[in-house]
Amino acid sequence: MSIRIGIYGYGNLGKGVESAIRQNKDMKLVAVFTRRDPSTVKIATEGVSVYHTDDAMKMTNDIDVMILCGGSATDLPKQTPELAKYFNVVDSFDTHAKIPEHFANVDSAALQSGKVAMISVGWDPGMFSLNRLYASAILPDGKDYTFWGKGVSQGHSDAIRRVEGVIDGKQYTIPVESALDAVRSGTNPELTTRQKHIRECFVVAEEGADLARIENEIKTMPNYFADYDTIVHFITKEELLRDHSGIPHGGFVIRSGKTGFDQEHNNIIEYSLKLDSNPEFTASVIVAYARAAYRLNKEGSKGCKTVFDVPPAYLSMKSAEELRKEML
Amino acid sequence: MSIRIGIYGYGNLGKGVESAIRQNKDMKLVAVFTRRDPSTVKIATEGVSVYHTDDAMKMTNDIDVMILCGGSATDLPKQTPELAKYFNVVDSFDTHAKIPEHFANVDSAALQSGKVAMISVGWDPGMFSLNRLYASAILPDGKDYTFWGKGVSQGHSDAIRRVEGVIDGKQYTIPVESALDAVRSGTNPELTTRQKHIRECFVVAEEGADLARIENEIKTMPNYFADYDTIVHFITKEELLRDHSGIPHGGFVIRSGKTGFDQEHNNIIEYSLKLDSNPEFTASVIVAYARAAYRLNKEGSKGCKTVFDVPPAYLSMKSAEELRKEML
Repeated sequence: MSIRIGIYGYGNLGKGVESAIRQNKDMKLVAVFTRRDPSTVKIATEGVSVYHTDDAMKMTNDIDVMILCGGSATDLPKQTPELAKYFNVVDSFDTHAKIPEHFANVDSAALQSGKVAMISVGWDPGMFSLNRLYASAILPDGKDYTFWGKGVSQGHSDAIRRVEGVIDGKQYTIPVESALDAVRSGTNPELTTRQKHIRECFVVAEEGADLARIENEIKTMPNYFADYDTIVHFITKEELLRDHSGIPHGGFVIRSGKTGFDQEHNNIIEYSLKLDSNPEFTASVIVAYARAAYRLNKEGSKGCKTVFDVPPAYLSMKSAEELRKEML
Repeated sequence: MSIRIGIYGYGNLGKGVESAIRQNKDMKLVAVFTRRDPSTVKIATEGVSVYHTDDAMKMTNDIDVMILCGGSATDLPKQTPELAKYFNVVDSFDTHAKIPEHFANVDSAALQSGKVAMISVGWDPGMFSLNRLYASAILPDGKDYTFWGKGVSQGHSDAIRRVEGVIDGKQYTIPVESALDAVRSGTNPELTTRQKHIRECFVVAEEGADLARIENEIKTMPNYFADYDTIVHFITKEELLRDHSGIPHGGFVIRSGKTGFDQEHNNIIEYSLKLDSNPEFTASVIVAYARAAYRLNKEGSKGCKTVFDVPPAYLSMKSAEELRKEML
């Protein structure tokens, strides 16, 4: 008996979920839902149909967990509460400031339907959040640091493309090595935004465009670049395609904390990710939590859950006995 | 209402628990139990009494969680099942191969008493185990690596001291940097014992002892040193005391795994610890899980649990709402 998965939204994340399901022998993909005309959407899994999102409600008996692959800005705030009325769901809602509100909406829907709805699953929020929690519970007398990168920021790449005269662009967020080293040394430094990350931009400009103006507009853009040391490279369309078409990302969660009767000992807990594919890794985390959502619901759990609520054993294909024998 | 903690066994770990309790505002130490004559044991916390272990059973109403600080070889296999009959307990049982047997014994006692008994809490087993589980559930198509150090191995230090002509000694386990780098590169190397760790020994020899013989006996000692590249330094008693009296440790859990339809992307998850004090850090993990044991039991849970069974939120002093708002 496989866990039957539906994918709701077929962009980079949806494709990542589709490929991750193949690596998990206890799961199978049963349907993909799209807002586009389903006949125009070609998926990678043979024998699985693509449906319009409007038809999802007809398949409540065929799907154990629906994985929502829409965006956090406008899709998920509506879709997750709506679909939690009918399915166990997992989303990757990542607008940190709006999580309490999203939780409340989803919780009320899922409590009523008796389903489990996991929100904000991925790596940040997700695995990074878990590591912040574990580390701060273990070392209460300490300080947390989160660094992102090296990786592509979609939001900052979009911002570059909005500058006049820019055809295309990619932005990498890069943690500052000396800041990482200062944190690892246990000195608990206070770090400004500028001291923690560099922003590096690869920009394709229109022919004859004023490159100095473009560079200046990028570097002084409020919210996105003004508070950072930003490097701008102008490259050709071919170079962008050849060297910058991947979606790598990653980062570091570091806690530095004291122990001992006189706080005389320092201890560093560090968690880091180095990902060739941000959406595929996010999808892999989501798929593991889809397993957990299914099991929790089987046991009678309902309502909205986050990674903080799930016993780790629920994520694994292995039994509790196997886990204790092989992994403890 | 503080969580009332008892410490059963007052060595390095017991002292670590005592100091960790001070960092957790929702807990208080109520008693320390020793096999020695209690009048000879001076603890660091004023107003708290030291009792003989025989008197623990008289205090079942005064202690919410008993933290067992004995050794895994002979103490815990007896103590944990015995004390789980009367108390919620946490131990740091670390003989990996015997965990299933220990679990079964403790589970049967705790199910009968209705208490929660957490076993094998610390960093390995413990936080390292958790990270092996999370990482392998997320990246099923991958490979795990655990490295230990740089840190003091008590067992290997004891082995050095048993060599004839040796007065005292300390052994450091050191991960091989090039092996770490190979793992981080995503090539999934097969590594031998010798390729993963170096053993470095600081030895105080008797005056006139045959140093060449001692060095050779250490380096060829089966199980402990023969399978490793071992470095032996002879130093004075003063140097040992001055430079090697700490108990640092740490290590790395790294998983390297593929994602994508053609396994074309590599992803690295790395967790590492750099600890000035191994026993104090272990104690800090234990104290966080004592909180979880208390809460789980309050909710009606009973039986033996490991770190795999505990929802992360149970470890934190913060409420679920605070955690979602501040840490997710």
